[in-house]
Amino acid sequence: MDGYAVRSTDTKGARPSSPVFLEDFLPIRTGMEVPEDYDAVVMLEDSRLREDALEITAEVHAYRNVSRIGEDIRQGDVVFRDGHALRPPDIALLSALGICSVQVYDRPKVAIIPTGSELVPIGGGPLKTGEAYEINGLMTELYVEKWGAFAKRSDIVPDDPEKIRDAVASNQDADMIIMIGGTSVGEKDFAPRVLNEMGELFVHGIRIQPGKPTAFAQVGSTLVVCLPGYPVAALADLYLYIRPALKKMAHQSDFLPKIRARLARKIPSRPGYLSVVRVALKDGTAEPIMISGASILSSVARADGYVIVPEELEGLEEGVNVEVNLFE
Amino acid sequence: MDGYAVRSTDTKGARPSSPVFLEDFLPIRTGMEVPEDYDAVVMLEDSRLREDALEITAEVHAYRNVSRIGEDIRQGDVVFRDGHALRPPDIALLSALGICSVQVYDRPKVAIIPTGSELVPIGGGPLKTGEAYEINGLMTELYVEKWGAFAKRSDIVPDDPEKIRDAVASNQDADMIIMIGGTSVGEKDFAPRVLNEMGELFVHGIRIQPGKPTAFAQVGSTLVVCLPGYPVAALADLYLYIRPALKKMAHQSDFLPKIRARLARKIPSRPGYLSVVRVALKDGTAEPIMISGASILSSVARADGYVIVPEELEGLEEGVNVEVNLFE
Repeated sequence: MDGYAVRSTDTKGARPSSPVFLEDFLPIRTGMEVPEDYDAVVMLEDSRLREDALEITAEVHAYRNVSRIGEDIRQGDVVFRDGHALRPPDIALLSALGICSVQVYDRPKVAIIPTGSELVPIGGGPLKTGEAYEINGLMTELYVEKWGAFAKRSDIVPDDPEKIRDAVASNQDADMIIMIGGTSVGEKDFAPRVLNEMGELFVHGIRIQPGKPTAFAQVGSTLVVCLPGYPVAALADLYLYIRPALKKMAHQSDFLPKIRARLARKIPSRPGYLSVVRVALKDGTAEPIMISGASILSSVARADGYVIVPEELEGLEEGVNVEVNLFE
Repeated sequence: MDGYAVRSTDTKGARPSSPVFLEDFLPIRTGMEVPEDYDAVVMLEDSRLREDALEITAEVHAYRNVSRIGEDIRQGDVVFRDGHALRPPDIALLSALGICSVQVYDRPKVAIIPTGSELVPIGGGPLKTGEAYEINGLMTELYVEKWGAFAKRSDIVPDDPEKIRDAVASNQDADMIIMIGGTSVGEKDFAPRVLNEMGELFVHGIRIQPGKPTAFAQVGSTLVVCLPGYPVAALADLYLYIRPALKKMAHQSDFLPKIRARLARKIPSRPGYLSVVRVALKDGTAEPIMISGASILSSVARADGYVIVPEELEGLEEGVNVEVNLFE
């Protein structure tokens, strides 16, 4: 604190109506060491430098405006425990302690493999009938990077078991492979079959809407998640499975901002299925965006977040209080 | 949808107990165009390909599992309005529309100028008495980048009006200059005086705790904010003033995650001052971290967020419901 170092006992009784005059004091600037003779600092606002003395209009107690050694952190104190995500002030604190380098967990490495013979790279010229731009890989890459992992997106892999096998084999250095498309029950949906041959297929098909064809597998030490090719279903999977998995792999806690809101309209849902319903927020109410068709990305553009309808319910009634998970 | 294109009228009455057999159908894969002769798609699960016919066990209505042109977005529709922050699915949607480039607002450019003759660069060897590592500049840089702006941190500027003037003058290309330190009422606190000479000093001193010496100025077209040199006060200013300003300059909405919690202990506060109180969250309660001294960064290391006590109150009572602004 900028001011004057004093002996606190000398300031007894000082107040604006009866100032105390001191001859023994030392001008102090923030951060300066206070010599042992003094034990407190009077603020500039409470003092006035006269010709031969310091006029003081406030009493100060011992150690007032003086930081003691070890007051912030004592030698041997634990400052951060394993698993703490370092925020800017935490990095500042470490720097203040002279700690310029700390050991941290690696970011997970994620390989993203879009599959589908009908796919065309973004910006790849006008589409022919039956073709679509490969947008899920980009969306997944943006989220994976946003969620703190390294993303490596490979070229589009056509519906060919050999090429899918090669793509998985050549990404075995990743902690996680996200394959997109090729995972429903169609005759060309090879991904789960290939994964079952290469490693272990744990799950193929989940009672979730949208997102039913999701699959989980492991090949070597690499986890493999197959996301549906429908963008809205892929998005639901990203939030429900990929995000928590990446946070766990990075030893980070997973805090997704949520707010509570009143449901503006009834949400019907299929019993036995966990439903992920996009909602728009307006004046504290959540308006469900009930456009059928998981390909309808425009519904996401209008959505602020999503509501989960548990599988044991047949929907949610208008007016109930719901928890909205916010898209970032 | 993978399945078979059919005429919906042909499927009337089909159910597992009374299947319908069709001779006129076409195998369809997701994304393929459905020829005009057909108006619906029967899912693979509800069909079985026999030698000379397709057995169907579910009735489908017109346009069932068929997307119509314009169903998602019609020509001429506005997809995103000015000011919408593009999230990963939004970028995917634009890509799906063949839009690979959009005009966006510039990120604000922020120059960060740490001042103080007592400061030593981080990692710059052991400190002598009265010296401190320059950690506020790093903390500010990390937040500015996190909040979506470009940060340019300059070297430490000593307490010298000419050098402070030079530093401000040479950063006139920035949208905002953040000066740290040199802004209280000490004799060497030159920043506000220099700014007053170079441009307009709007505010010097705010009834906020911590953060009283904050100053706001404008030099040319560049906004200048002076943050106090105490790290906890600088941190409060970053959240209260810098963050909303940067979001506004970037034309972004400012959503800081908040949660409600019960106050575990009384918070005393100085009436007439807005108080920013750090809290730790434990089992739904907010525990105030009432360590005095704005230099105590370790209190931030233990904090999950902060509570604002308005200036008209003398504190908050134990047990009241408070809104906690979460540190990211």
